[in-house]
Amino acid sequence: MKILAFAASLRKGSFNRKFIAQAVEVFRASPGVSVDHADYREFEMPIYDGDLEESSGIPKGGQEFIRRIQAADALVISTPEYNGGIPGTLKNAIDWASRVDPIPFDGKPILLIGASPGGLGAVRSLWHTRVPLEAIGAFVYPEMFGLSRAHQAFDDKGNFVDAENRAHLEELIQSYLKFVGERGAGA
Amino acid sequence: MKILAFAASLRKGSFNRKFIAQAVEVFRASPGVSVDHADYREFEMPIYDGDLEESSGIPKGGQEFIRRIQAADALVISTPEYNGGIPGTLKNAIDWASRVDPIPFDGKPILLIGASPGGLGAVRSLWHTRVPLEAIGAFVYPEMFGLSRAHQAFDDKGNFVDAENRAHLEELIQSYLKFVGERGAGA
Amino acid sequence: MKILAFAASLRKGSFNRKFIAQAVEVFRASPGVSVDHADYREFEMPIYDGDLEESSGIPKGGQEFIRRIQAADALVISTPEYNGGIPGTLKNAIDWASRVDPIPFDGKPILLIGASPGGLGAVRSLWHTRVPLEAIGAFVYPEMFGLSRAHQAFDDKGNFVDAENRAHLEELIQSYLKFVGERGAGA
Amino acid sequence: MKILAFAASLRKGSFNRKFIAQAVEVFRASPGVSVDHADYREFEMPIYDGDLEESSGIPKGGQEFIRRIQAADALVISTPEYNGGIPGTLKNAIDWASRVDPIPFDGKPILLIGASPGGLGAVRSLWHTRVPLEAIGAFVYPEMFGLSRAHQAFDDKGNFVDAENRAHLEELIQSYLKFVGERGAGA
Repeated sequence: MKILAFAASLRKGSFNRKFIAQAVEVFRASPGVSVDHADYREFEMPIYDGDLEESSGIPKGGQEFIRRIQAADALVISTPEYNGGIPGTLKNAIDWASRVDPIPFDGKPILLIGASPGGLGAVRSLWHTRVPLEAIGAFVYPEMFGLSRAHQAFDDKGNFVDAENRAHLEELIQSYLKFVGERGAGA
Repeated sequence: MKILAFAASLRKGSFNRKFIAQAVEVFRASPGVSVDHADYREFEMPIYDGDLEESSGIPKGGQEFIRRIQAADALVISTPEYNGGIPGTLKNAIDWASRVDPIPFDGKPILLIGASPGGLGAVRSLWHTRVPLEAIGAFVYPEMFGLSRAHQAFDDKGNFVDAENRAHLEELIQSYLKFVGERGAGA
Repeated sequence: MKILAFAASLRKGSFNRKFIAQAVEVFRASPGVSVDHADYREFEMPIYDGDLEESSGIPKGGQEFIRRIQAADALVISTPEYNGGIPGTLKNAIDWASRVDPIPFDGKPILLIGASPGGLGAVRSLWHTRVPLEAIGAFVYPEMFGLSRAHQAFDDKGNFVDAENRAHLEELIQSYLKFVGERGAGA
Repeated sequence: MKILAFAASLRKGSFNRKFIAQAVEVFRASPGVSVDHADYREFEMPIYDGDLEESSGIPKGGQEFIRRIQAADALVISTPEYNGGIPGTLKNAIDWASRVDPIPFDGKPILLIGASPGGLGAVRSLWHTRVPLEAIGAFVYPEMFGLSRAHQAFDDKGNFVDAENRAHLEELIQSYLKFVGERGAGA
């Protein structure tokens, strides 16, 4: 089973990059699971423009995004929260990806996690990110993990300071993998 | 496989009662599927009140609601739209049901459909109804069916006037049953 | 200027009752402001039922709710969060109130606050409560106040343990009253 | 009173460009109102990147967007719907604009309209676009106008085929201008 994992942030020091790295470790420790740990910079693309699409097609970063989703059985995304919702950059990537037929997200299981320095742990972003993904057919796992006070959550090596966070993430990923496996079983 | 089906409306002449009746017909025509077609009046209950809960427990209509969900492998709900969102009555039933442990919706697949007399087909209700259900662990199927101009959609016998609506509903229910079956396969 | 204030909870020991009591104090200390501090039990009503409405009209608690909104220039509501969203009981009250013409919420300024024992401070409820109110024409003030860890927020007399919460509430209410006054000026 | 008007679409043939042009006509016909009718291409900018911001500041298109909002008393935006929500391109522009202090949207009245070729008239986009704007302090007008079947709504000169749409837009803009005026009166 192949999992595509990425943090929806271009910023190198992003808390979401640290959070997804922890998730990748947990996925890799699970039997039968391989992980494509993508850097969001590989998916850098301009903002959506219907005229650009007509003249030049999907931009290179968007094509790469689509290919990597198609090659995966399931996804895990760590998303920041910007202004109480989904980051424009993640919605823009979804918008470009939705321009091919079949839409690569259609029928894909997705686990959403998110980190923020505040007390709310990106919870509003997590809920707003579900919507466009479900609108194009993704199976977004009901449980999500919003990590609050993310600036204090990781040590110098990027590990969780608080062992409970690791335990919570492991438990969530185990139940998610069970869900993904069931879906695969019927395919 | 047992499906609990109901329209989230007490009103006898509700379009959503007609819509769910059509869905029930389609489910019943599917091999291996039995349907518990509930009347929402069976689930009549007062508005949630923590003091009432402490003194008298879950009210009778709420207990019945919980029992019927527990007995089902999956659900289909037809919901009206009130004031751009989930009806208070449906949210209230979810709130009462969430007071038992384990929450009966946890892990249940749910198909949402909805009918409204206007042009928008209850679409805002459908999206707002996903949220509390997913928050308590339900697998709400990504695709939904919002039926617009519902006052013109059914003939005197309650059948769809427009054959396309029947075909659309059949196709949706087939793909939903495939999803439910896959989930069951892994359980 | 007359403000209708209530907590959308029937439970006597509700944190939202304590929170609204603090808000009422602040409003009452503002020059030219009188407050109608309602107990939500005055608005107790059955769940919405179109047939009941047709046979008996709006129930007594709903009529009282409508009268009190009509008599107010603006509102402040403290709402709990149930299952990641608006309580069914509050949505149900809005649904009944929307059945008269003109809808009493239309054009009314509303300040939303909310308390929860968890870390998220009812933030998902606050955002979901905006939607039906705005759908029926209310001017919901952009800034809201979600009080987290509400079980530790009040002392025995119901005052805030943390002086910052009081300062935050006073600042919010001052800016809200400025907004309400501007609206009134043009009416 | 100065209104900034734009369609949140780069595409030249966009229905939202036609829709905003109709709104601009109505605003211009109102006494005391001047309109800054912007082309969204003036606000073209890369996707948000915290590292780019740190090294080079807000990009040129973003700076222009901020300046134009600051210079306006109020806004009207016509937004498409992409994948059941706010276009990534509009959210991205909001995200960049939120990086200056004070945030230019704070306290600004905004009227949202939107057009789509389908039957739902961009309604899900309109509701999702409110959220980040309100989260950063904008007064988004409660009533919105979602134009469905937009591909059939305009004639060759860009006028509404259906006179009711014009009347509806005029009525909405008159009540919005009243709201903006009241806000201004108290400032």
